Amino acid sequence: MHDETWGNHHVDPLDETLAALVDLDAEPGAAAAREHLTRMTVPPGALGGVAELGVRLAGLAGTCPPPLPEPAVVAVFAGDHGVHAQGVTPWPQEVTAQMVANFLAGGAAVNAFAATVGAEVQVVDVGVAADLAPAPGLLPRKVRHGTADMTAGPAMTRDEARAAVHAGIETARDLVVAGNRLLVTGDMGIANTTASAALVAAFTGASAEQVTGRGTGIDDATHARKTAVVAEALARHGLAPDPSDGHFRSAPEDPLGVLAAVGGLEHAGLTGFLLGAAALRTPVVLDGVVSGAAALVAAALAPTASHAWLAGHRSVEPAHTLALDHLGLAPALDLGLRVGEGTGALLAVPVVAAAARALADVATFDAAGVAKKDATDEHEAGDPP
Amino acid sequence: MHDETWGNHHVDPLDETLAALVDLDAEPGAAAAREHLTRMTVPPGALGGVAELGVRLAGLAGTCPPPLPEPAVVAVFAGDHGVHAQGVTPWPQEVTAQMVANFLAGGAAVNAFAATVGAEVQVVDVGVAADLAPAPGLLPRKVRHGTADMTAGPAMTRDEARAAVHAGIETARDLVVAGNRLLVTGDMGIANTTASAALVAAFTGASAEQVTGRGTGIDDATHARKTAVVAEALARHGLAPDPSDGHFRSAPEDPLGVLAAVGGLEHAGLTGFLLGAAALRTPVVLDGVVSGAAALVAAALAPTASHAWLAGHRSVEPAHTLALDHLGLAPALDLGLRVGEGTGALLAVPVVAAAARALADVATFDAAGVAKKDATDEHEAGDPP
Repeated sequence: MHDETWGNHHVDPLDETLAALVDLDAEPGAAAAREHLTRMTVPPGALGGVAELGVRLAGLAGTCPPPLPEPAVVAVFAGDHGVHAQGVTPWPQEVTAQMVANFLAGGAAVNAFAATVGAEVQVVDVGVAADLAPAPGLLPRKVRHGTADMTAGPAMTRDEARAAVHAGIETARDLVVAGNRLLVTGDMGIANTTASAALVAAFTGASAEQVTGRGTGIDDATHARKTAVVAEALARHGLAPDPSDGHFRSAPEDPLGVLAAVGGLEHAGLTGFLLGAAALRTPVVLDGVVSGAAALVAAALAPTASHAWLAGHRSVEPAHTLALDHLGLAPALDLGLRVGEGTGALLAVPVVAAAARALADVATFDAAGVAKKDATDEHEAGDPP
Repeated sequence: MHDETWGNHHVDPLDETLAALVDLDAEPGAAAAREHLTRMTVPPGALGGVAELGVRLAGLAGTCPPPLPEPAVVAVFAGDHGVHAQGVTPWPQEVTAQMVANFLAGGAAVNAFAATVGAEVQVVDVGVAADLAPAPGLLPRKVRHGTADMTAGPAMTRDEARAAVHAGIETARDLVVAGNRLLVTGDMGIANTTASAALVAAFTGASAEQVTGRGTGIDDATHARKTAVVAEALARHGLAPDPSDGHFRSAPEDPLGVLAAVGGLEHAGLTGFLLGAAALRTPVVLDGVVSGAAALVAAALAPTASHAWLAGHRSVEPAHTLALDHLGLAPALDLGLRVGEGTGALLAVPVVAAAARALADVATFDAAGVAKKDATDEHEAGDPP
């Protein structure tokens, strides 16, 4: 599928996005935030992960204090998976479309959590196997009706993967143009933790046993089958360890190829969404293992993009922790969630907002007339903020 | 100090509060929430800690869904510590009063975080060493001007400890009467992590080395001194391990005595606040190690009270994790915070709100027309919610 629908200048949106990325870690805004944190009326380093979020927001904004990251919107990328046929989950594939209808009716966990933090919910149909009727809150970006079975061949073609990445880039752009200042990732797709596991194995070098979790809460027999399916898919696509030296053969050299081989359409959409947000210097809160797997693809395409990504929570899926560690992201929340949909990331939205507000509102020691600690101890300053 | 100011019937407020507590774990509301969670359109057990919060809220409310826990208010209990004279921190004692002024002026981290989640800030002067001028947002409940040095004798008398507990009970009652439906603990007191460490050691049996942390970020020499001071205080009050058998001698048998010996006035106030909230069946979010230490005292006085307590976050203080483990509470957030003031607990307020809203708003499988997983797998249902 050659994409000729992007504007009228025939530039590939992914290439354009990658070219727009800059290294924000050295941004004056980030440096200003680090300096300001030392003068705020909190003990040095005591803001922990909140300070780190503030530094990232200031780097993205190019100024300190950064603007409040409001309003927020969660984009729930939905797709189906051919590997469902391998019996990796007891849930029927139709549940993907049924849950999309539930999101659009406001009846799912993501809706309740979004309402709590004042975020909007948008569903992006990038690959649901059913035809979905137009509805408010549904962005129709279908690339194909679900992926193919990755144990029998590539889950999708390289062009399809690229088209889904484009859909994600476009979604990020549209939501920022609409005025949103904080993006949140979400996902829906029966069997998508299987594809996530395969992606995380391919990008981190972990084994099928290490990456395969219980998903919605599968029993031992299904878990064993799911692990074998992940191992089979990795072997099928040359992503398993080389028996001669124990090292993995492929992965970061061809991120789009790996994405097409074992990923899902929602992973591809999220990959574009994460890159698009970074190119627009807009912070994006990552949800669980599906977002984490997509972030590995995106980071392989553009390592500097990760500055825009904030890890919302740690899901119970083992592959999620592997992905976060590989990306160097520390999750804000640890609630034992495994819902997906964007739920965990939404609960971190107030944490991100607090990080920006602290840089804007907290008085300095001088301004508040608060004594600093004894000068003799001035050389020890706790952990750097 | 004999308390004759409580109403006109001369009933001791602590005794009255303890008598009002009931075991909420067996409440019909909690059971209804557990049952409803199995019918909601989320995979069984997938809501993790959020489901547990919802069950607690429903138990407190006696009905499912529980009402939304709004509005929220953080009560920052402030006090000074005689043990400051032992050189356990480089910060001058005056910083306690200066930070209280900063809270009242809206310039501290607790103010920024409270604004983010829509909570009010109230400061409770239960034992600041300075005389504080009346101000909006300041509740004058001073029992004495700071504690005495716990290495030289008891930090306060038993009557003073009881009076500070009463102040906390009164604060909870006043804030609930004012319409608040979620209480949040906060604290301010230079050297109060030293008193917290001693309390946690006394109630958990941990050693001075295990409980003593870096507080505001002290250097190695100060940390060694602080650890020795905690050990000395424990030995002075018969709370250290018995050298003959290695077991600790005292603690839960006389919680008020331990509180008076090595606690702070803000710990005593928070103890009353936690018990008062439980007696009023009002949920209360716990902040860091100071609240955790107070919760150990309160749980020793009344184990059933802990049903009303929600652990907001895990601070980096080692004694906090020991206290949470002892109390059986799982923290919602893990952000590496060590600010105190109520900051970490405030960031968990939206998590608590989401738990209530999920029980109220999320559709059931039947209502939403979402298929449940294959009946053959019906016997495996993931982790119990």
